[in-house]
Amino acid sequence: MITLGITMGDPLGIGAEVIQKALPKFRDRAHFKVFGDPKLLPQLKDSEIIPVSIPKESANYSPASAGRASVSFLDAAMEAWRRREIHGLVTAPISKAHVKLAGFPFPGHTEYLADKTATKKFAMLMAGPVLRVTLVTIHEPLQKVSSLLNQQRIIDTLEITHRGLKEKFRIAQPRIAVCGLNPHAGEEGHLGGEEISIIAPAIEEARRQGYSCEGPKVPDAVFHEAYEGKWDAVVCMYHDQGLIPFKMVHFRDGVNVTLGLPLVRTSPDHGTAFDIAGKGIADSSSMEAAIKLAIQMVGAGKEER
Amino acid sequence: MITLGITMGDPLGIGAEVIQKALPKFRDRAHFKVFGDPKLLPQLKDSEIIPVSIPKESANYSPASAGRASVSFLDAAMEAWRRREIHGLVTAPISKAHVKLAGFPFPGHTEYLADKTATKKFAMLMAGPVLRVTLVTIHEPLQKVSSLLNQQRIIDTLEITHRGLKEKFRIAQPRIAVCGLNPHAGEEGHLGGEEISIIAPAIEEARRQGYSCEGPKVPDAVFHEAYEGKWDAVVCMYHDQGLIPFKMVHFRDGVNVTLGLPLVRTSPDHGTAFDIAGKGIADSSSMEAAIKLAIQMVGAGKEER
Repeated sequence: MITLGITMGDPLGIGAEVIQKALPKFRDRAHFKVFGDPKLLPQLKDSEIIPVSIPKESANYSPASAGRASVSFLDAAMEAWRRREIHGLVTAPISKAHVKLAGFPFPGHTEYLADKTATKKFAMLMAGPVLRVTLVTIHEPLQKVSSLLNQQRIIDTLEITHRGLKEKFRIAQPRIAVCGLNPHAGEEGHLGGEEISIIAPAIEEARRQGYSCEGPKVPDAVFHEAYEGKWDAVVCMYHDQGLIPFKMVHFRDGVNVTLGLPLVRTSPDHGTAFDIAGKGIADSSSMEAAIKLAIQMVGAGKEER
Repeated sequence: MITLGITMGDPLGIGAEVIQKALPKFRDRAHFKVFGDPKLLPQLKDSEIIPVSIPKESANYSPASAGRASVSFLDAAMEAWRRREIHGLVTAPISKAHVKLAGFPFPGHTEYLADKTATKKFAMLMAGPVLRVTLVTIHEPLQKVSSLLNQQRIIDTLEITHRGLKEKFRIAQPRIAVCGLNPHAGEEGHLGGEEISIIAPAIEEARRQGYSCEGPKVPDAVFHEAYEGKWDAVVCMYHDQGLIPFKMVHFRDGVNVTLGLPLVRTSPDHGTAFDIAGKGIADSSSMEAAIKLAIQMVGAGKEER
């Protein structure tokens, strides 16, 4: 049986709660090592908890100590991965503000994990029961998107998406649609030129390199096709192009996957939810989906190390 | 009983076919006047057809004569509206290329109708059983969207949306969400500034003028709320922001509505579909939805003239 690592995330958030609700449902399918604060994980078995050296105050966390603890949990998990004690990692949400107080120099988990594994090319995949989307640009002002697009960036995303679907999702012949940037995919240049100058040539080159993909597709038509099952993934040029349709149908069961890393990594598609933390009312469906998918992906993957 | 006008659209497209499939289902709810070529409408009653003077060649249309005919159907319908012989109008699709050959100086139906009715402020509403969206900018390259946004344009769209929902959809207290432009609605300026400099002040002013609306909302969260019924309409900053989620769920039953005109106008949410015209296989569900909605809107509307 595989062993899955889970980081508890911010101690002031809902991480501990959703882990304790979700984990027991998968005990017959994986062993677990939860990197966190044992005092906040009373419902888990002792053998499932890896106590991480945490600030003395504990249980009475300040934002800064919560940030320090969040980072410690991650560092401990990556140490365990290096020692091959875990086969994949599910990360509960951290607070950007809190980890910044602790001197964490990364915008989020993804960049941290890329750094710790010396990964240059990676991509964010959002996966749900119906849709899968990957993004060429992520957290950028809409106005900047056009200037950030280039062929290499698109080709890299196509390569990572294609490999991820084959190796981690067991899809032998991935069907990948690539969105245009503009309304009607530019309508032959009348509504924008990036499809002709950047996206189409990138698709051609990616296909030449053996990555199956089609496009540039009309954005407001391709998601309906994906919704009906025609595509295994849709590669999107900007954040909301992919996240609006994805979250509309997968608001509760979406999973965030980092593709391109040497380890499987998933996370629930929600934040720390400080406003409801500690009340026992957090919805664990996204954490359950993240654990389930990580188990499937580890099972599918030839270990790549 | 009301009388609904229907223009046949491009004679080489699927207009005549979907009209003949859809219209009989509504004979108990409205009288119809179809402006078109009688030879292409054999299944309708003579009393339902307004034969329009059409090119001699008829039945054997060239692209240019098809374009000329498309425009004649529209002109005849607007004459009938001026004489108060029809209470609303459903337009079957025209071909931009064909009407251009006939010297039609408008980008589409909407601009033609605005011109013929001397309407300055109008907005495109996409309406489906679940979602309704209106657009602040429409057919613009993504890169230009930011520079085209201004407070007045947003306020105008909010005013038209609010009035349309009240007067044509019988919604006494419309719940209108206004999207931000950037990922996470700009995240307090970190991912783009238009929410702070343009959108939020426009919403504030619109509310001051009595138009109910809330925002700027996080785009990838608000459509899930709309999908679950929380909003009567979502006002979008650009084409794909609204059309991607809309068409994903309403690919077959979406209706295009022009708000702000002195007459009710709807149209099916598809094009001429030349590739399948004449084969008898066109899906008439969107035309049915357009007729149904036009009947409802005429019924709801105090005649505004």
